[in-house]
Amino acid sequence: MTVIEQTIQSIRQTLDEDVYQAAKERLANQAKPAGSLGVMEDISARLAAIKGTINVNLSNKQIVTCAGDHGVTQEGVSLFPAEVTPQMVYNFANNGASVNVIGKHAGAFVKAADLGVNHDFEPDLPIFHKKIKYGTANFTKEPAMTREEAILSIEAGIEIVNELETTTSIDLLGTGDMGIGNTTPSSAIIAAFSGIAVEELTGRGTGIDDDTLKNKIEVIKKGLTLHKPDPEDPIDVLSKIGGLEIGGIAGLVLGAAAKGIPVICDGFISTAGALIACELAPAAKNYLFASHKSVEIGHIYMYERLGLTPLIDLKFRLGEGTGAAVCMELLDLSTRILADIKTFEEVGIENAQ
Amino acid sequence: MTVIEQTIQSIRQTLDEDVYQAAKERLANQAKPAGSLGVMEDISARLAAIKGTINVNLSNKQIVTCAGDHGVTQEGVSLFPAEVTPQMVYNFANNGASVNVIGKHAGAFVKAADLGVNHDFEPDLPIFHKKIKYGTANFTKEPAMTREEAILSIEAGIEIVNELETTTSIDLLGTGDMGIGNTTPSSAIIAAFSGIAVEELTGRGTGIDDDTLKNKIEVIKKGLTLHKPDPEDPIDVLSKIGGLEIGGIAGLVLGAAAKGIPVICDGFISTAGALIACELAPAAKNYLFASHKSVEIGHIYMYERLGLTPLIDLKFRLGEGTGAAVCMELLDLSTRILADIKTFEEVGIENAQ
Repeated sequence: MTVIEQTIQSIRQTLDEDVYQAAKERLANQAKPAGSLGVMEDISARLAAIKGTINVNLSNKQIVTCAGDHGVTQEGVSLFPAEVTPQMVYNFANNGASVNVIGKHAGAFVKAADLGVNHDFEPDLPIFHKKIKYGTANFTKEPAMTREEAILSIEAGIEIVNELETTTSIDLLGTGDMGIGNTTPSSAIIAAFSGIAVEELTGRGTGIDDDTLKNKIEVIKKGLTLHKPDPEDPIDVLSKIGGLEIGGIAGLVLGAAAKGIPVICDGFISTAGALIACELAPAAKNYLFASHKSVEIGHIYMYERLGLTPLIDLKFRLGEGTGAAVCMELLDLSTRILADIKTFEEVGIENAQ
Repeated sequence: MTVIEQTIQSIRQTLDEDVYQAAKERLANQAKPAGSLGVMEDISARLAAIKGTINVNLSNKQIVTCAGDHGVTQEGVSLFPAEVTPQMVYNFANNGASVNVIGKHAGAFVKAADLGVNHDFEPDLPIFHKKIKYGTANFTKEPAMTREEAILSIEAGIEIVNELETTTSIDLLGTGDMGIGNTTPSSAIIAAFSGIAVEELTGRGTGIDDDTLKNKIEVIKKGLTLHKPDPEDPIDVLSKIGGLEIGGIAGLVLGAAAKGIPVICDGFISTAGALIACELAPAAKNYLFASHKSVEIGHIYMYERLGLTPLIDLKFRLGEGTGAAVCMELLDLSTRILADIKTFEEVGIENAQ
């Protein structure tokens, strides 16, 4: 059995139904109108069912920002040059990037992972060193990677979760991405799975103009037509038109689900990774939380396919794990709502309902 | 000059434009795609302009939950009996209510204020003791309060801010409400100002059924027809069909704006109070932040009138200051985004834009 198969087999098919019902009951008996904390109540009950307790502790939060380069940037699909990918990895390692600042506010550790950056990082740089290769190939000419490389990228994500768990127990995992050009493979992935027209799934990434957007759509169509990724085979999709960091994120989701760790996925690229994971292992969805609704127009179709609703819509279009970091605070808060708000009985008020 | 006039005159007409521009420039130069942290960037710039610095400190957060009873509950507009209002005030004082739990997570102090609860609280109960009277009158029969009482309720809110400021400097103020039946006057207030049909502005409050909703709509129409509140005279509106805690919240907003304190208003009832404040003093809007979009259908019309967009939509319909408390974390985070995310220059990456 392969590492991926083994990991998928470790994912529980159902959550703790008894704890879920106990959580629902407590929420209904709290001294407030029934259901009046809306989405936060739903989240808190699912977290309780994942953790098997009403009093969930999410103290130890970890964000892993997976980085990789993309051959398809040769086609002029992005505003930034590919050289920015390694520069941003250094920025993550130096705690100066957006995800570091937002992660710190959320009380989360942030660590980048090199899955496929076109740069040799110093071995002592505090990142996960998991390079598969120096960026994907240009998928308008050849498959982004081999099937073997796609599998290795997923396995690398699984390994990262396992390594984190050996040093300290992770209560909540957040995903993030860095890779100039990576909205292009992400749009291609949701197009491959959904069959929806590329035009409806392709946005402006970091802020490209109309002509560049038109070109980006053509590039994605070309890749899909050339390689015909099989939507029934998620690894085929990942290898032909995906990205190494996207495979890494898929591995993070699978690895976390296998260990019973709730995982909150960031924006468009992270959700592409989560999609690969959940197409491979639908039970992983039980452990997955959607963070924000990205400005990228294809994002909502990914959420639809996953059956998830984003928590916030703050017009983010950054990635790195920034949306996941913001929502970690909300998930943490939801656990306090469930455990700490007193019931009518506890405060001696008669429940009207 | 009255206290209210004096307070209004102390509100600056404009914010610090130089700091606002400096904030915008820093955000544009940070090592991320321009504008990619969306709404959080806008908020951070306005907070900087309010505080006159790029490095805003919102450490000292305070939520004031204004409570009052409503004679109109005699008409059967609410699911809960009026006795719950004082019981919940005790719950706030004992730190067991939803706003206490969420406030604690946000690092905010929470203190209730009695503006008009139908109960004599012990003088040493740790709340603001500002009772005007034992609840409003039933506005289907007589005005909710006299003009003098409405003025006193606003002044009480102003006093609370001034008292808080004498003991410690408040960096961010959140409003909250408690008062069985108080979605009814809140719907009446937005109806009076906007002229929109009562049916379109009236929701289910804590969860009333179809028949009770129909009755609630008739009750509001009766009050408006009987008293004809003058939309050009916000104190007339407040006195005839408003609430004592709503007046208190209006005072909180005016008092905070006069002292240059940003204020985040909670849901439907708090926004009714903010509306009274901003109809009296439009410049107060500069200091006002919208928190969440309530399930109450009239809420969005209030925001439209105030020119504000809610930050989150988590299907809350609780009040107390719960939505304000959640959003305090986001406002706090926005200050870190502005001050702490490094610029392209600071990290040595060339800006593509």
